[in-house]
Amino acid sequence: MARRPEPGPGTYAAAGVDRVPVARALAALLAGVRYRAPPASGRRRGEAGHYAGLLRIGRETLALTTDTVGTKSLLAQELGRWEEVGEDLVAVNVNDLAAVGARPAGFVDSLSLARPDPRQLAALGRGMDRGLRAARAHLLGGETAIVPEIVRGPDLGGTALGFFPAGRRPVTGDRLRAGDLLLGLAASGLHANGLTLARRIVRDRGIALNRPRPGATESIGREMLRPTRIYVAATEAVADDPGVTGFAHISGGGVRNLVRLNPSVGFDLDAVGPVPPLCAFLQEAGGVPLREMYQTFNMGIGFVVAVRPGAADRVRTRLGRVGYPDARPIGRVRAGRGVRIPPLGLSYLGYA
Amino acid sequence: MARRPEPGPGTYAAAGVDRVPVARALAALLAGVRYRAPPASGRRRGEAGHYAGLLRIGRETLALTTDTVGTKSLLAQELGRWEEVGEDLVAVNVNDLAAVGARPAGFVDSLSLARPDPRQLAALGRGMDRGLRAARAHLLGGETAIVPEIVRGPDLGGTALGFFPAGRRPVTGDRLRAGDLLLGLAASGLHANGLTLARRIVRDRGIALNRPRPGATESIGREMLRPTRIYVAATEAVADDPGVTGFAHISGGGVRNLVRLNPSVGFDLDAVGPVPPLCAFLQEAGGVPLREMYQTFNMGIGFVVAVRPGAADRVRTRLGRVGYPDARPIGRVRAGRGVRIPPLGLSYLGYA
Repeated sequence: MARRPEPGPGTYAAAGVDRVPVARALAALLAGVRYRAPPASGRRRGEAGHYAGLLRIGRETLALTTDTVGTKSLLAQELGRWEEVGEDLVAVNVNDLAAVGARPAGFVDSLSLARPDPRQLAALGRGMDRGLRAARAHLLGGETAIVPEIVRGPDLGGTALGFFPAGRRPVTGDRLRAGDLLLGLAASGLHANGLTLARRIVRDRGIALNRPRPGATESIGREMLRPTRIYVAATEAVADDPGVTGFAHISGGGVRNLVRLNPSVGFDLDAVGPVPPLCAFLQEAGGVPLREMYQTFNMGIGFVVAVRPGAADRVRTRLGRVGYPDARPIGRVRAGRGVRIPPLGLSYLGYA
Repeated sequence: MARRPEPGPGTYAAAGVDRVPVARALAALLAGVRYRAPPASGRRRGEAGHYAGLLRIGRETLALTTDTVGTKSLLAQELGRWEEVGEDLVAVNVNDLAAVGARPAGFVDSLSLARPDPRQLAALGRGMDRGLRAARAHLLGGETAIVPEIVRGPDLGGTALGFFPAGRRPVTGDRLRAGDLLLGLAASGLHANGLTLARRIVRDRGIALNRPRPGATESIGREMLRPTRIYVAATEAVADDPGVTGFAHISGGGVRNLVRLNPSVGFDLDAVGPVPPLCAFLQEAGGVPLREMYQTFNMGIGFVVAVRPGAADRVRTRLGRVGYPDARPIGRVRAGRGVRIPPLGLSYLGYA
C-alpha cells in the first residue's frame, strides 16, 4: 500500500511515469480528507505511509492494506497466462501485512476487466488460491466488474486484513537503532514492480518475450512473470522475537523502501550481492543507470529483516527452518538518514 | 461487494453487459479458490455472497467488503466533477457494511488513473471526506496508481472494514420470517448503479447532460451524479433492536438484492411508491421495460429494513430521529421465494 506510482526519474518518466506531478496530485487527495473518526469507530495507531494502516478495535489491533499488481497484468495478457498474477495479487498485499508483523486473516479481490473470460478467471482463481495458501488467509469476498469503457487491460487489485496474535506487537521500525543488522531475503524475480520499465525495454529493443535471454532456459516473458515470493512464513516465525526491530517489503521504490521503516535513521547496504541476471540483462538492454535500477527493481532482495546484532544468528536459524535459508546480512542501520549502497556509490534520501 | 456486473437482460446486454458469460466467468474464478484457512487465521462466519465477508478474530467479529463506483466515474469525467463520486466510493462500501449491521471503522481507497490531476484528486479527497464523516470511518490508507496503459477512465475502488460493537450480532437475514414488515428508506438518486444503461440512453437519445429534464431545475448530468445516500446512521440506530431481522442495500440488481438476505423466504412489495422522476424520464427516453428498471435501478428505495410487525413503530421512530423520517412500509416477507411487485405484475426469482 502506498500513495505513489512505481517511482523513478529520467528513464522511468520516459516510460510514462513522472514522479513530481504524481506527488503533487497525491498531496491534493490527502489534503481533502480532513476527517478524524471518533474512538467509538476504533482507534488509529501509528503513521500513515507505513506498509499497512493500523486500527485498534476492542482488544484487537488490525492491519489493512491495499495494492494492485500494476502493469504486470499487461505482461500476463501478452503471454495469456494468469496464474502468476493471481498469486501476485495476494502476495503484494500479504507481504505489506508481513512488513508490519501482522498475520494475514482475510483477503478481498477487486478485478476490473474488459471482458468476462472464464479461462482467464479460472487461472486467476488458481493463482489466488496459491497465494492464500502460502499466506494462510481466508478469501472473504470480492468484486468483479466488466467495464470495457473504463479499462483497456485488467486492473487487478486486492485488500488484505491482518491481526496480531496474542502478545505480538506491530513491528513498525520505531525501535531501530544504529548497529542493527539488516538481513536480506531473496526475491523470486521482479515480483510486481518495475514492470512498466521492464516491458518498455523489451518492446523498444525488439526482444522476443517467448525466447530466453542469453544464459537462461526459461523464456524472458515467463521469467519476468514469475510470481512474487511470499514472506509471511518468515515474519510469522520471527515477529515475536524481541531482537527483531523492523521489516521492509522491497516493492515499488526498491531499496528506498527501507526509509519507510524509520526516517530518522540511515541504512548502509554493504553487501547487496550480485545483480540478478534478469536485472543485469534489462539494465544492459535498456541502458538504465544503476541508480535507477536500485530504486525501481528489488535487485534480488524482496524483503528485509532488521535485527539486533546479538539476535542475528537465532533469527537466521529460525528463518532457515521455515523456508528462508537464503536470509543473509546485507547491511546495517547507521546514524543519519536515507539509504546508501557504498560499494556502488549510491545514496537515496527519501522514499517517495 | 458482489460477484457480478451491474446486471440486466436485453436492454442491459445491449449496453455492453451480458449476464450469462459473466456468471460463467465468476464461477470459474471461485472454483479456482479451494483453500480454507485454519482457525489460527481467524474463523470465517456466514456465507459468501452476502453483503460483506465476516471473520471472527479473538473476541471481535469483523466485516470486510469491497466495491467500485463502476461507470459512474465516466459520468464524473464527462462533467469534470469529482466530489460526488469520491463520496460514492465510501458510500457504496459502508452501505454494504451497514447491510450486515456492522459499524464502519476503516476504509482504504484504490484509484487507478490515466493521469495525475491534482484538481481531480483534491475533489475526490473532499468527497471521500464527506463519506467518511457520514460513516464515521477512518481512512487507513490507499493506493493511487497512474496506469495509462491499463485504464481509459478512472477505476475508483475501495474496501471498508467494520466491526460489531459489544453485544451486537451481525444482521444477516437468517431470522426473517413470513409477516415481517419491510421498511423502505429513500434513495438520493441513482446512487452508483445502472449508470452504464443511463449513460447509454442519454448518449443514444442525444440528451444534453448540461440541461434539466422536463420538470427539473438541476441539469440531468448533475441529477445523475448525485452522491449515494449513506445509511450507516440508520443501521447504527436500530441494529441492536431485537425486532430488526434484516437489512438490504439496494445496489446493483435493484429489488433483487432482497434475495441476498435470505433465499428461503419471499418478498412482496405492495407499495414501492411512485417511480422517481429521473427514473421515469430514463425509462421513457430509453424505452426500458419496467422489469428491467426494477432490476437495474434502485427506483427510489436505497435501503430496506426488515422488522417484526410489532417493532415497526418503534423502529420507524428511531430512524426518524437519526435522519431517516422517510422510512415507510413498502411490503412484507412471505412464504415462498424471490421478489414480487404485485401491483406491477413483476416477479424475480434470484439475485444474480
